[in-house]
Amino acid sequence: MTDPLPTWRDGATKDAVVRYVEQTCTEGAFGFVPVAERVAVFDNDGTLWCEKPMPIQLDFFLRRLVAMAEADADLRERQPWKAAYERDYGWLAKVMDDHYAGDDTNLPVVAGGLLAAFAGISVDEFEQESAAFLRDTRHPTLGRGYLACAYAPMVELLGHLRAHGFATFIASGGGRDFMRPVSDEVYGIPREGVIGSAVTLAYAPDDRGGTIIRQPAADYLDDGPEKPVHIWNRAGRRPVLAAGNSNGDIEMLDFTQHADKPTLRLLVLHDDAEREFAYVSGAERALDRAATSGWTVVSMKDDWATVF
Amino acid sequence: MTDPLPTWRDGATKDAVVRYVEQTCTEGAFGFVPVAERVAVFDNDGTLWCEKPMPIQLDFFLRRLVAMAEADADLRERQPWKAAYERDYGWLAKVMDDHYAGDDTNLPVVAGGLLAAFAGISVDEFEQESAAFLRDTRHPTLGRGYLACAYAPMVELLGHLRAHGFATFIASGGGRDFMRPVSDEVYGIPREGVIGSAVTLAYAPDDRGGTIIRQPAADYLDDGPEKPVHIWNRAGRRPVLAAGNSNGDIEMLDFTQHADKPTLRLLVLHDDAEREFAYVSGAERALDRAATSGWTVVSMKDDWATVF
Repeated sequence: MTDPLPTWRDGATKDAVVRYVEQTCTEGAFGFVPVAERVAVFDNDGTLWCEKPMPIQLDFFLRRLVAMAEADADLRERQPWKAAYERDYGWLAKVMDDHYAGDDTNLPVVAGGLLAAFAGISVDEFEQESAAFLRDTRHPTLGRGYLACAYAPMVELLGHLRAHGFATFIASGGGRDFMRPVSDEVYGIPREGVIGSAVTLAYAPDDRGGTIIRQPAADYLDDGPEKPVHIWNRAGRRPVLAAGNSNGDIEMLDFTQHADKPTLRLLVLHDDAEREFAYVSGAERALDRAATSGWTVVSMKDDWATVF
Repeated sequence: MTDPLPTWRDGATKDAVVRYVEQTCTEGAFGFVPVAERVAVFDNDGTLWCEKPMPIQLDFFLRRLVAMAEADADLRERQPWKAAYERDYGWLAKVMDDHYAGDDTNLPVVAGGLLAAFAGISVDEFEQESAAFLRDTRHPTLGRGYLACAYAPMVELLGHLRAHGFATFIASGGGRDFMRPVSDEVYGIPREGVIGSAVTLAYAPDDRGGTIIRQPAADYLDDGPEKPVHIWNRAGRRPVLAAGNSNGDIEMLDFTQHADKPTLRLLVLHDDAEREFAYVSGAERALDRAATSGWTVVSMKDDWATVF
């Protein structure tokens, strides 16, 4: 038999993944899942591609805030433009750490800035900008372009799942329309498979088919308890397989339960400072839950033969 | 050559449909569309299945309102329970006619009642109720069950499109979660292909995977200018083919335009009092637009060999 997951090291984790996929496809076996119900959902940042030293989309937004502050001196005194302009990443990192610890005091300040950054442009223009950024920008420390920051073992797993009849979705806290222009190329997931946070959109008619314009307001933040809701909204099903890496994925992993069939819940552990990063900040509760709820922890250091 | 659409009568309309699909699949031809971009969107009520004497989902909601009014005498004095309890369909029809004519004075009263009717139950319970209703209820005048009220020529067209690489979506003003349990059986469209109006949902965790609960508030009404937005949210693409039948479909049909390729826009005309119903109420502006914008009007009477 050929190894279905050559970028995964042999061991209990790989066994659990390979066996789970096998049993979902074995008619008559305990754990068989009809094709239509083979729904797998994946968080993106920290699960499918790297999120340190900052989420890739945050880099995209910060560069836009810097450009806005360079054009308008008044903005340099206002957060989050001030932090972006001064490269005060500590201030921004603290907002995100506070968020994952449950303190959202400064999140609206950041969110307001990020929402303003691309308000009033069409979804097509936004995609052109995000696609160009993702294609042309290098990761600050890993020595590779952002599009090459996807984890090879997870990309391989996505392909393995689709080859076995699974529908694969990205259930990300990051922006849906940020990921869509590259999701097929990077993950083999077409545009309609990307679930993620979204801004409010409005249709502006004209005589050439109209355009859809980004409004300066969030439609929803696809994180925590919103993840099951938006998985339902899009896929109309409860998943049988879910993969995450942070506290924001707990509800999605919890939702991935069925009374009548086994499920696979994966939690990616960032414990590989040499090849990627080592951190548990923002994942403490999720790791506790993995231990008590039987989720499968994926050690980047031990379980992956290669990271990229 | 076998006739790809035997339930359509030969003529200009059928020719336009058959030729459009052919050219999207002919590499090198003007009008070739890569498979990934073959997105077709269909309104549901009045386009894929009948909507008279009232939309099928309205019948479902009214029966619930009647049951609530039977259990609670106070509700019998309040709209819309009063109209439902007294079978005052004239009052309700006027609200819908007013809506399509641009007057939404009483729409919030109806919407509030409909939202209250199924608030607090899980999406799974709601689906069980809607599926049971659709399977067990007969159309009031057509002498057939509701599930048999889909238009055979449109079901055939959906299959013809999928056989030619099109992704088919339902972009309905009706409720997404109402249609989902039967969409595959009736239209061959899986759950994730159903776009429609939605109520706000909330995730309620428990130790068995939690449930998603319907809240007494609309998330969005997928009608008029909201249709392009929710097609974009779901499919991430501008369609190349759209079919509708009423003023609420105008923006969806408008949105189905591309600078670099031809599109097909269909408007179903209800002109067959003998086999279905004959009406233009709520479609006046759409019919005007069809004449001026080159949309293809589908006459149920002339273009369809059979309706059901």
